[in-house]
Amino acid sequence: MENHKPFLVLLFFAFAIGFIAVVFVLRWVLHFREGLAWDGGAKEFNWHPLLTVTGFIFLQGIAIVVYRLPWTWKCSKLMMKFIHAGLHVLAFILAVIALVAVFDFHNVQNIPNMYSLHSWVGLTAVILFSLQIVLGLCIFLLPVSPDYLRSAFLPIHVFSGLFIFTTVIAAALMGITEKLIFSLNDPKYKDSPAEATFVNVLGLLIILFGSLILWIATRPSWKRPSEQLLHALHSNQPASVGATTDTAIGERPDPEPTSEARRRTGKSEE
Amino acid sequence: MENHKPFLVLLFFAFAIGFIAVVFVLRWVLHFREGLAWDGGAKEFNWHPLLTVTGFIFLQGIAIVVYRLPWTWKCSKLMMKFIHAGLHVLAFILAVIALVAVFDFHNVQNIPNMYSLHSWVGLTAVILFSLQIVLGLCIFLLPVSPDYLRSAFLPIHVFSGLFIFTTVIAAALMGITEKLIFSLNDPKYKDSPAEATFVNVLGLLIILFGSLILWIATRPSWKRPSEQLLHALHSNQPASVGATTDTAIGERPDPEPTSEARRRTGKSEE
Repeated sequence: MENHKPFLVLLFFAFAIGFIAVVFVLRWVLHFREGLAWDGGAKEFNWHPLLTVTGFIFLQGIAIVVYRLPWTWKCSKLMMKFIHAGLHVLAFILAVIALVAVFDFHNVQNIPNMYSLHSWVGLTAVILFSLQIVLGLCIFLLPVSPDYLRSAFLPIHVFSGLFIFTTVIAAALMGITEKLIFSLNDPKYKDSPAEATFVNVLGLLIILFGSLILWIATRPSWKRPSEQLLHALHSNQPASVGATTDTAIGERPDPEPTSEARRRTGKSEE
Repeated sequence: MENHKPFLVLLFFAFAIGFIAVVFVLRWVLHFREGLAWDGGAKEFNWHPLLTVTGFIFLQGIAIVVYRLPWTWKCSKLMMKFIHAGLHVLAFILAVIALVAVFDFHNVQNIPNMYSLHSWVGLTAVILFSLQIVLGLCIFLLPVSPDYLRSAFLPIHVFSGLFIFTTVIAAALMGITEKLIFSLNDPKYKDSPAEATFVNVLGLLIILFGSLILWIATRPSWKRPSEQLLHALHSNQPASVGATTDTAIGERPDPEPTSEARRRTGKSEE
């Protein structure tokens, strides 16, 4: 990997910011708000921001960059695909529980569902996320899917993943805005009580975490090296272009060789 | 250019969606709200969403993809840099007027400034945008800036541009949420009056426009070909690797040759 040290520094920074955001949302619901319970009241609603930030943002962010962690390059690509998919499925489950919490709260409190832009964007993100997981599993893990389909779908899969991640963050920022306006009465949001400032900072932390994950995920030189290169490095043999190194179920040669692999193997981009 | 037709279809679709979003925000402020004036009241506030969507989102989106329009490839890179920079400066001026409108409105109405997450994120985006423009002008247009600095800064410039664009959209979505909650009273936002549904659709249009611009801007095969290749194509001569075609002030050989240029010139990525 090129620029190993800056990568690790940024990765640590991203994880730290994401972890602090989770601590902030926990302190918000436990200290400033009513706490947590499953009672149809405000305590049940509080699972919604907590699970969104923890699962749908922090966990999804980790799932996006998991291929890029250098200490996972010893693992087979197939195992990394399972970890990538598993973390996304876990994030999806937490997102669905977060949705159930807010629908249940609304129904008990006689508040209409799905009227706000926040709810439209949030539900669309959950639906797209489920579609992304199903298509990802079918195309990249089912052994019957052909290589040309994987190669053609990969750029769409990568863009969709980053787009959904960004959309979830935008939905969370709208949710924070709604909640602070609705729940702060005396003093109001515009009077900047401690809770308002604290949760605004939570919003900034979420944006900073998102930007770091997007930066890490879009640096070509920080991609996981191709299977050919990893095989050659482990066996101390020169990598043969086009060679496959793993014939396990669902495993295919990397349809997008990295710049590093291309340079070391002498293969041009096309 | 690879995939010329899909590019043009998507570009047309993006421009159409962006234009419809501008029409929507105009109809919002003129039909559903109080109209436009500079009187310290609600009519002055209305310049804020109108200029944000028109300048800071639609115009910035066009400025981001302007290099990729095939009919601009006859123009010199220097002229395209001036157009790219000029559109961004225009978007910045409109964003500043949008800011002045809302600060003036708040001051006249005795509403505190800068208390909401929307205002924090929006002002941060404007400050980052000004910094992006100043650094872009100094590094890519000042003739004294060295090539190595341009090459090193280009990935940061590209990422920052897309990040700021995305952040402005997130701020706009929060602004829409705030405005609908504050201004709809009888019926309220939660009662889904026609204005609420209409402006929610505006929010979706903005997200769709943003996603199309981001997709177009991040496809490697749709990049403007390098100056070497364009020169070779115009003069019907084979491109010589490393040749410069323009020695005008501020003009340098492309520090990031496109995949198309590399393929046609036979130059490998590194």
